[in-house]
Amino acid sequence: MAQNVYDDEDFFVAYAALERSRFGLGAMPEWPAMRAMLPLLGGARVVDLGCGYGWFCQWAAAAGARSVLGVDVSERMLERARSATAATDPITYARADLDVVELEPGSVDVAYSALALHYLTDIDRLFRVVADALVPGGRFVVSCEHPIFTAPRQPVFVTGPDGHEVWQLDQYLVEGERIRDWLAPGVRKHHRTLSTYVTTLLAAGFELTDLVEWTPTDDDLVTHPDWAAERERPMFLLLGATRRA
Amino acid sequence: MAQNVYDDEDFFVAYAALERSRFGLGAMPEWPAMRAMLPLLGGARVVDLGCGYGWFCQWAAAAGARSVLGVDVSERMLERARSATAATDPITYARADLDVVELEPGSVDVAYSALALHYLTDIDRLFRVVADALVPGGRFVVSCEHPIFTAPRQPVFVTGPDGHEVWQLDQYLVEGERIRDWLAPGVRKHHRTLSTYVTTLLAAGFELTDLVEWTPTDDDLVTHPDWAAERERPMFLLLGATRRA
Repeated sequence: MAQNVYDDEDFFVAYAALERSRFGLGAMPEWPAMRAMLPLLGGARVVDLGCGYGWFCQWAAAAGARSVLGVDVSERMLERARSATAATDPITYARADLDVVELEPGSVDVAYSALALHYLTDIDRLFRVVADALVPGGRFVVSCEHPIFTAPRQPVFVTGPDGHEVWQLDQYLVEGERIRDWLAPGVRKHHRTLSTYVTTLLAAGFELTDLVEWTPTDDDLVTHPDWAAERERPMFLLLGATRRA
Repeated sequence: MAQNVYDDEDFFVAYAALERSRFGLGAMPEWPAMRAMLPLLGGARVVDLGCGYGWFCQWAAAAGARSVLGVDVSERMLERARSATAATDPITYARADLDVVELEPGSVDVAYSALALHYLTDIDRLFRVVADALVPGGRFVVSCEHPIFTAPRQPVFVTGPDGHEVWQLDQYLVEGERIRDWLAPGVRKHHRTLSTYVTTLLAAGFELTDLVEWTPTDDDLVTHPDWAAERERPMFLLLGATRRA
């Protein structure tokens, strides 16, 4: 079972203050790259795994999706999502742990999941559930914390001998739980190698079409000079895949 | 053009002393993973890009390949390869820079390349040449130094604050030349992200089938305790791909 840290009071309050919580997709630096992997959503049946406040669900509805299912483990997140959703939006929200979620086979054209996988203990199961839920040729667009970001004992930059910031990478090939103090103490994340993410996706019946390690552009650095360190090590891994026929 | 450091006297002598030079495929820790990506070679037309001493060419010949073309930029390496090859082996060696090599379209069933890509300035061109050379469904099995290994300004372990060895990762998302002192001073390597390797492969007309970040097994560590640090950061990236029909 994944930890449901989002219903922890301290975590929830701190998470609510993040730019991406307050401003949605436009405050997600990796969103343009994810959007580029998505097909047109007009008429599509869409599922968002780890939908949080429902920003993507609402975007999919606005883009003409026929139906949108938003799934999240956090009841508080779903409450916020429901309160921000218009009654006419073809969106359904459902509470489920992504480690045990069930989806109806053949019921989905586009599956999306942003920054949820690194909380899960069993992505092999989830990828197979998504593969079964998708129609042949259906799309799966997914992001997670990059393995370089999740691996270390001490996930911080330090100043190296020549004055540059360096990321203290270790334990990259040792998969398993990592306890982090992020927004609240004791957040449980799961480190997997990039090889494991890709290999598990292929084994579940997907063809890999996109693999992006997000990096800020020169323009990004003008508006967000604090993102410069993001060129030293990737924080986000984005994968695009197509369900095999 | 790739640097031809292998014909530098100091480099050549130091390279010749490496276990993988002296003992061939059996001394390449990543060989079992590469072999697992290869099809049966009986009757196949095989090319080895960056063949060095020709260990793989000879193995392919022994495995029943119909023809084997070994390509390398180093004349000295090719001399050694020729001297170790039996006259009856269906092997041809040819000198070429992999940044400008030409291959006959549709003439190859299996293409192999071990630890050469990180010397090249233009993998996009090479991948397209290989895609054109392969028959539809043909296999491309390739290894390179892992981007985590090639990225840093200072590619060394240091002892972190808690006494563990950590890899000083930086510049991961800044692609381009890295000057290394490895066997000889001033070896020019080219850092690319993992995303670039995979995306370039897909764009050239391949379907990705395998992505391995080599790590020692527990058994490996019994015989090679000095490999323990290889679990802290990956050194080798292995890719398997199939030419689209």
